[in-house]
Amino acid sequence: MSAERHREIERKFLVRKLPEDLTAFPSTEISQGYLVSLDDGLQVRLRKKRKQYSLTYKRGLGNVREEREVALTDEQFATLWPATEGKRLSKTRYEIPFGDRVVEIDVYSGKHDGLIVAEVEFDDEESAINFQPPDWLGEDVTGDPRYSNQLLAS
Amino acid sequence: MSAERHREIERKFLVRKLPEDLTAFPSTEISQGYLVSLDDGLQVRLRKKRKQYSLTYKRGLGNVREEREVALTDEQFATLWPATEGKRLSKTRYEIPFGDRVVEIDVYSGKHDGLIVAEVEFDDEESAINFQPPDWLGEDVTGDPRYSNQLLAS
Repeated sequence: MSAERHREIERKFLVRKLPEDLTAFPSTEISQGYLVSLDDGLQVRLRKKRKQYSLTYKRGLGNVREEREVALTDEQFATLWPATEGKRLSKTRYEIPFGDRVVEIDVYSGKHDGLIVAEVEFDDEESAINFQPPDWLGEDVTGDPRYSNQLLAS
Repeated sequence: MSAERHREIERKFLVRKLPEDLTAFPSTEISQGYLVSLDDGLQVRLRKKRKQYSLTYKRGLGNVREEREVALTDEQFATLWPATEGKRLSKTRYEIPFGDRVVEIDVYSGKHDGLIVAEVEFDDEESAINFQPPDWLGEDVTGDPRYSNQLLAS
């Protein structure tokens, strides 16, 4: 996320072929649930990543979205989390360095067990447009509702 | 709010006649803005009340709603508040004791200058149903969308 401008600039890809040594890369278990998630991209998301809790507001669709994120205390998280019941997902996120970028590979568990999606974040739109993905990434599905987390969590 | 059960049980009234000594009662300036506010009652609200900041999730319509509220730090508030632009309201809340209840009278300022609405909170539905309002309160407008804060903020 661009902290200054509260914009998230990101592309999302299918994965053609997983890196053979995937588990050798840093990984994190992520649980997230939605207080709100609408078709127009408006969402308020709670996330637990290791012992770190956060609330994120997002608005818009496509590769540039407004994003505002705050860290939550465990108490704040515990109060709000029950309201996300039925709108949750969990995944393991692997971080694969590629040039001066990091490809984040999300391997979903639970209801979407086996689904794999990759994301790359950028500092500006030009970098996003010019990015040449590695050959092990597949189709660009940025903005494709079938791979939106709000749909996956419903 | 019922802290244990995360339910807000509340009735809303028009005010037939303001107490003559209104300004003698405790009052608070409240500013609030909505990250989300939908017709079905789903809302995520930010509120500033004196130096206290909060985020509140509400779901449902009528006199019993799910409500989950957390206090925010000023930094958390400052990060999220800009996303409520165009969906804000401000009011002065007066607290008038009445029997074992408190009648909260909200006097709106800004766009809705002059609008006055009263609210009474209860611990359970039975108390809400049995409540006999003082004669200076008028029509019960609980759940009436014309007096919902989400509409007033839009």
